[in-house]
Amino acid sequence: MKFFAEIEIMPKKGLLDPQGKAVTHSMSSIGLTQVSEVRVGKFMTMEMEASDEAAAYVAAETACKKLLANLIMESYHIRVKAL
Amino acid sequence: MKFFAEIEIMPKKGLLDPQGKAVTHSMSSIGLTQVSEVRVGKFMTMEMEASDEAAAYVAAETACKKLLANLIMESYHIRVKAL
Repeated sequence: MKFFAEIEIMPKKGLLDPQGKAVTHSMSSIGLTQVSEVRVGKFMTMEMEASDEAAAYVAAETACKKLLANLIMESYHIRVKAL
Repeated sequence: MKFFAEIEIMPKKGLLDPQGKAVTHSMSSIGLTQVSEVRVGKFMTMEMEASDEAAAYVAAETACKKLLANLIMESYHIRVKAL
């Protein structure tokens, strides 16, 4: 079966996010003074062959742990759906 | 009222995504040969003051159009929820 996985990777809560800070500051210059606390991370999508949704989740999690996320500084969130 | 917005920004479908291609190739080297079609984009979260959910969506969309996304090469997807 074919699955589609969406992965969000964000800097962990307590950690500085200089890119997010820079974007937050830029918001007021385009007139969006009501926006605060911008945080910037990565978003990835992928397709995969797997026997079931749980197996697809495990494959996506392996990809996060071994390749995509820096677990010291980043946390990930995975959504899997059947295609 | 305070709202929380999540924004996904991805390279448009037809366009080359060299970063995604590189990650796809790396998958087999960590044993995930079943993974294909990786695409890499950006993920952003922000908080904002707004009168209602529609107004919060409009603010997030303005941020995408004016600052966060390159509309020629990227598309965005916004989710808004009340805090």
